[in-house]
Amino acid sequence: MQIIGEKINGTRKQVKQAIADRDVDFIQRLARRQAEAGSTWLDVNAGTPPDREPDDLVWLVETVQAVADVPLCLDSANPQALAAALKVVNQTPMINSISGEPQRLENVLPFVVEHGCSVIALAMDDKGIPESSEARLAVARRVLEATRAAGVPDARVYVDALTLTLSTDVQSAMLFCDTVRAVRAEYPDVHFVSGLSNISFGLPARSYINRAFLTLALAAGLDCAILDPLDRELKATLLAAELVLGRDRYCLTYTRAYRAGAFDKP
Amino acid sequence: MQIIGEKINGTRKQVKQAIADRDVDFIQRLARRQAEAGSTWLDVNAGTPPDREPDDLVWLVETVQAVADVPLCLDSANPQALAAALKVVNQTPMINSISGEPQRLENVLPFVVEHGCSVIALAMDDKGIPESSEARLAVARRVLEATRAAGVPDARVYVDALTLTLSTDVQSAMLFCDTVRAVRAEYPDVHFVSGLSNISFGLPARSYINRAFLTLALAAGLDCAILDPLDRELKATLLAAELVLGRDRYCLTYTRAYRAGAFDKP
Repeated sequence: MQIIGEKINGTRKQVKQAIADRDVDFIQRLARRQAEAGSTWLDVNAGTPPDREPDDLVWLVETVQAVADVPLCLDSANPQALAAALKVVNQTPMINSISGEPQRLENVLPFVVEHGCSVIALAMDDKGIPESSEARLAVARRVLEATRAAGVPDARVYVDALTLTLSTDVQSAMLFCDTVRAVRAEYPDVHFVSGLSNISFGLPARSYINRAFLTLALAAGLDCAILDPLDRELKATLLAAELVLGRDRYCLTYTRAYRAGAFDKP
Repeated sequence: MQIIGEKINGTRKQVKQAIADRDVDFIQRLARRQAEAGSTWLDVNAGTPPDREPDDLVWLVETVQAVADVPLCLDSANPQALAAALKVVNQTPMINSISGEPQRLENVLPFVVEHGCSVIALAMDDKGIPESSEARLAVARRVLEATRAAGVPDARVYVDALTLTLSTDVQSAMLFCDTVRAVRAEYPDVHFVSGLSNISFGLPARSYINRAFLTLALAAGLDCAILDPLDRELKATLLAAELVLGRDRYCLTYTRAYRAGAFDKP
């Protein structure tokens, strides 16, 4: 399971302020803590207007990689920002994201090719997020046709089957899982990613919903998640789910995590 | 989802003592609390030697049903104890359990027929617990052949696909889920039950494992669980899993439970 640490995101109030103030300590603390908590990648999202985004993203990248030895996930659809950030990264990053939108493919895919990046591919196009798993599979097929045509191996593509909140569509999580299963059956080498917390947007007691979704999505084939790696209960859920899914041989990862203090309760 | 409250079990030290002392208050408190916490059934297990079990089980039944308006789950394979208990129950109970063991079928099934009981059917026989889901399905078929031949409708049978602890077989939970799916495909009217906590026996931080197992078993078709209904985190997991599985229309059960204070954390 790969984890993309989500916290360095300029749409969050404190991070927005830290970017505006060039608050190196604040950003580096977030970077260090997420890396120590086991992030495979660290998402960096400047969240600023297009004209400022290149400078802000470059600053974020340099600030983060000065303290965290973890590749970054460049969270932007802005070609100028991506071009600038890619000049300064010191490990091959992931790009977040492409989709079935032709403009986005045209703008972002060349960077993926040129720099050998991994890339998140959203199962949506310019008509929005399809309502059925079949239609999301059809979009994923178009995107994977484009990545293959450009020479990007499937194993560098992280399909996000997308989740609306359950409060607008109570079948949303099942639709996500069905889409993952359908795409996986045709493309066994691709990865599957999700920004976990969308599923519970607008609902109360969100953490319980996110944990149930993580467990069921793992069963369907999710192998990467954008989440808060500092959320101990979510991490404990992840460890337990992998164990129950039969993926933790001899229960070693689980019992070692227990001895290392990963669980707050018996 | 049906819940069988598990706490009145004479193999637990305090309950054993309460049975020996005829401690009405202790047992009635357990009964009342479990009923208030939403138990569909209350398990009663005397756990005493065969010669004492009839008297003890009758005392338990009478003590419990004096305060809890919930049908009982008579947890015994002893024909004398079952016969005595069935004379005093005031609601049609469930019997826990029959299995593919011919002796057990012969001893217990007649009570199920005569009293119109529901019954738990273990997917094991006199050779033990089969190692594959196919072999457990084969045992379940034999048991359901017997219940059908005796005139018991499938909807009164609760198949327990059985779980060894993950510490002896890390595929145990997946084997359980596969068995449930296989039996369900052939017998759409039967129920599926599990004594949740077996799965984590001998492992640390058991509650996380039990919650992950509950979530995945619900997805496979579990619709009844023997559990501690006073475990708030487990109940919260159940509510969240049902929501994420798309079974809680308009999120009403979840949001009502939230307003009623069911969740300890945001």
